[in-house]
Amino acid sequence: INEAKEISSSDIYRYEANRLGIKIEDEDFAQKLDNQDTLKSFKEKFHFPMVKDVCKCDEQKKNESPVIYMTGNSLGLQPKAIRSELEGYLNDWQRYAVEGHHKGEHPWISIDEEIQESLAQVVGAKPSEVCPMNTLSVNLHVMMSNFYKPTQQRHKIVIEAGAFPSDLYIAESQIRHNGFNPDTSLIKLEPLANEFTISTDRIKSILSEHGESIAMVMIGGVQFFTGQLFDMKEITAFAQSLGAVVGWDLAHAAGNVELQLHDWNVDFACWCSYKYLNSGPGCIGGLFVHERHTREFDSHTDKRLLGWFGNKLANRFKKETIFEAEEGALGFRCSNPSVADCTSLRASLAITNGASIAALRAKSLLLTSYLETLLLSIKGDHSFSIITPRDPTQRGAQLSLHIGGKVSAAKLKVSLLNAGVVCDVRDPNVIRVSPAPLYTSFTDVKNFVNILIKSLSE
Amino acid sequence: INEAKEISSSDIYRYEANRLGIKIEDEDFAQKLDNQDTLKSFKEKFHFPMVKDVCKCDEQKKNESPVIYMTGNSLGLQPKAIRSELEGYLNDWQRYAVEGHHKGEHPWISIDEEIQESLAQVVGAKPSEVCPMNTLSVNLHVMMSNFYKPTQQRHKIVIEAGAFPSDLYIAESQIRHNGFNPDTSLIKLEPLANEFTISTDRIKSILSEHGESIAMVMIGGVQFFTGQLFDMKEITAFAQSLGAVVGWDLAHAAGNVELQLHDWNVDFACWCSYKYLNSGPGCIGGLFVHERHTREFDSHTDKRLLGWFGNKLANRFKKETIFEAEEGALGFRCSNPSVADCTSLRASLAITNGASIAALRAKSLLLTSYLETLLLSIKGDHSFSIITPRDPTQRGAQLSLHIGGKVSAAKLKVSLLNAGVVCDVRDPNVIRVSPAPLYTSFTDVKNFVNILIKSLSE
Ligand SMILES: Cc1ncc(COP(=O)(O)O)c(C=O)c1O
Ligand SMILES: Cc1ncc(COP(=O)(O)O)c(C=O)c1O
Repeated sequence: INEAKEISSSDIYRYEANRLGIKIEDEDFAQKLDNQDTLKSFKEKFHFPMVKDVCKCDEQKKNESPVIYMTGNSLGLQPKAIRSELEGYLNDWQRYAVEGHHKGEHPWISIDEEIQESLAQVVGAKPSEVCPMNTLSVNLHVMMSNFYKPTQQRHKIVIEAGAFPSDLYIAESQIRHNGFNPDTSLIKLEPLANEFTISTDRIKSILSEHGESIAMVMIGGVQFFTGQLFDMKEITAFAQSLGAVVGWDLAHAAGNVELQLHDWNVDFACWCSYKYLNSGPGCIGGLFVHERHTREFDSHTDKRLLGWFGNKLANRFKKETIFEAEEGALGFRCSNPSVADCTSLRASLAITNGASIAALRAKSLLLTSYLETLLLSIKGDHSFSIITPRDPTQRGAQLSLHIGGKVSAAKLKVSLLNAGVVCDVRDPNVIRVSPAPLYTSFTDVKNFVNILIKSLSE
Repeated sequence: INEAKEISSSDIYRYEANRLGIKIEDEDFAQKLDNQDTLKSFKEKFHFPMVKDVCKCDEQKKNESPVIYMTGNSLGLQPKAIRSELEGYLNDWQRYAVEGHHKGEHPWISIDEEIQESLAQVVGAKPSEVCPMNTLSVNLHVMMSNFYKPTQQRHKIVIEAGAFPSDLYIAESQIRHNGFNPDTSLIKLEPLANEFTISTDRIKSILSEHGESIAMVMIGGVQFFTGQLFDMKEITAFAQSLGAVVGWDLAHAAGNVELQLHDWNVDFACWCSYKYLNSGPGCIGGLFVHERHTREFDSHTDKRLLGWFGNKLANRFKKETIFEAEEGALGFRCSNPSVADCTSLRASLAITNGASIAALRAKSLLLTSYLETLLLSIKGDHSFSIITPRDPTQRGAQLSLHIGGKVSAAKLKVSLLNAGVVCDVRDPNVIRVSPAPLYTSFTDVKNFVNILIKSLSE
């Protein structure tokens, strides 16, 4: 399988079927894959909504079967363990009040530091390089404030034209804050005409074009709309060779694909934890800063936005205001973190790492390939196209279906909901389908495709 | 009572005793005050730690009586209602998953907007002027990034010399970010020699001295260390008359004293919610921006740090990246907020507003005056002095006791803990004592003073 130049879904899936001794033609192919799935027990660790609670029609108002949940790219399902962990937090607060900062099983004074190791596993970093803090857009500002140091010669920020809107707003306002003009300092990576995705070669050629005028490159590791997984290692190295700082928005990558931020020499990265990391809506985000940036801190030249929680613990409660940055990512904290959110995140990361990113990715490659293969084999006049790259190494779990013809994606979403499938819709007329490997079975994928076929012909 | 030039504790407390027909000399004076306390039922709404869980000695390891909690200025007690509200949040996430953004009793898409009205009541604002978001130090950066626009003529930030360290770091880094030097641009309000507090007159005279070189004044409304309540109305008006922007750090003021941010014409304010607002450790902060600053938004000149959640809801999920700021404070959001934290805050604000800030402040004036009167009447050689202003209108709930002689405040704190009292210690040798009116009785105050006397003589 490693010899193929471009690996396709069917390669992966034939290879796996072969390895497992399952015939692709078998009626119970999905069932057999599920039986052999080493992660299958993880599904039990999550709460699934029931069809009756999300449907928009009367017929299903009594249907207590679980939905097929294809929206882990937007908001992950709730890990059952979070309830008891939050109760533990409430018990500590009840029992110790302010003394909870230093008492209990999870003292609050280090509630975020306790998660560094687990976060590091998820993004391929040293524990000191990562820390949960703030939320994603805020962290992008925190990082850009520190790393974007434009000069007349080098002032451009390169970003995807189709980046998540927040990232565009953030880059624009950082450019303006530094007295530059987004019209001339913001370079948007545009796909070729009539294409949705953008190749590494094209990215490199645009980077080359702007060369030493580029101060920073900031791209989503997995594109939120198309599901494209960028070659972060290659792009990071290439942009750095031009002298740029490279940051990644990993909202759709963390918990979805394998990351090696430290080894790839990434400068910084930020992510949210409520998608593939299942920590709950709006839960605390995460931040990576490569250790080579934090070895020395000089408050007079460093551009970080200071706050007392970035100060060494030994200084933090002293009257003298001596600021010595905590080691690594911790030194970028401003405030004491939300204990409720750190607690939820700790519980959800334990599940992800219990499965391991490597095993999740292995399952995901097969699961999404299976999904793609089934989608491509749909017969008849169903007009949709998959805008996500065909090469499984260039995508995560998500496939984005551009719905053509007269079918409206918004209406399709409702039909799917009424048939017990949750997925989401994005302008223009795209359905995002994301079988998260932690809690999605091969049978779910098969059932989803059958429901989709029915819904498309309604 | 209104005629007195400076009101003293004993004035308040004699006046109240008289009004209530209670003799100060009565043995059961505290009990009688408690009986007449219209807020007494609120104590039941909170969880109190038991002595056995916080003490540091063996003798008390079975003592299941509740502590006397004097640390509401640091971390408020847990409202019992938060548990069921958080369960409601978990139920919604379990039941609806991503559809919870638009379903359930508290749809997440407006989970923060739902709290604007309650927050507005607490700080004396219009609902559109306030919003829960981020955390305190982060919000100070968000506000300073927007409002600090230094020029060669006007570049100074005025702050207390003894400000909470985070505020000093924030001001320093904002000054450096704008290419100025804290040595010349940061003006620190110093008390007179041998004094802890600083008068309005002195503040005004320092402000006058720096006149039109002042770009911003940023002070803690209630001083975290001394407990001094500043005359926010007067200082705001005076500094604005010099052309400065005025922001307040209300960490120790929100939920503690009466605020009229709108009427006082304050430019901006930020606070945390885990102290007198009892929302839990590290819970989401709050932000006020006066409506006159947000009537028009021009993305090309406005300095706010943009993020998608500040964009109008109608634009937020569109592919076109049109940024039109949401009305008022909402337009300063960057990220979608933590639903767990907004839920906790909603539950705790309901209690505060159930009591009403006016009633809380009325009780607090009496409660802290009673505390002060008892402390001042301690006989014998107990060397401590109260560094908080004697005038009740110049302080909130907290009294700070500077412990003199050979007694160490840190050791005193432990003796107090072992005797069932929680209070906190700050460098140098100060004990902060804060009878939060929501859950502290007059009897608690009386018992506290008796325990203090005993601990001091150990
Ligand atoms: C006056 C004051 N300002 C700022 C802060 C920092 O708060 P946070 O950690 O929520 O940013 C505190 C925290 O106690 C405070 O008391
Ligand atoms: C790629 C990407 N970037 C940024 C964001 C903004 O996240 P937040 O609201 O947590 O700042 C999102 C949210 O979905 C996202 O998908």
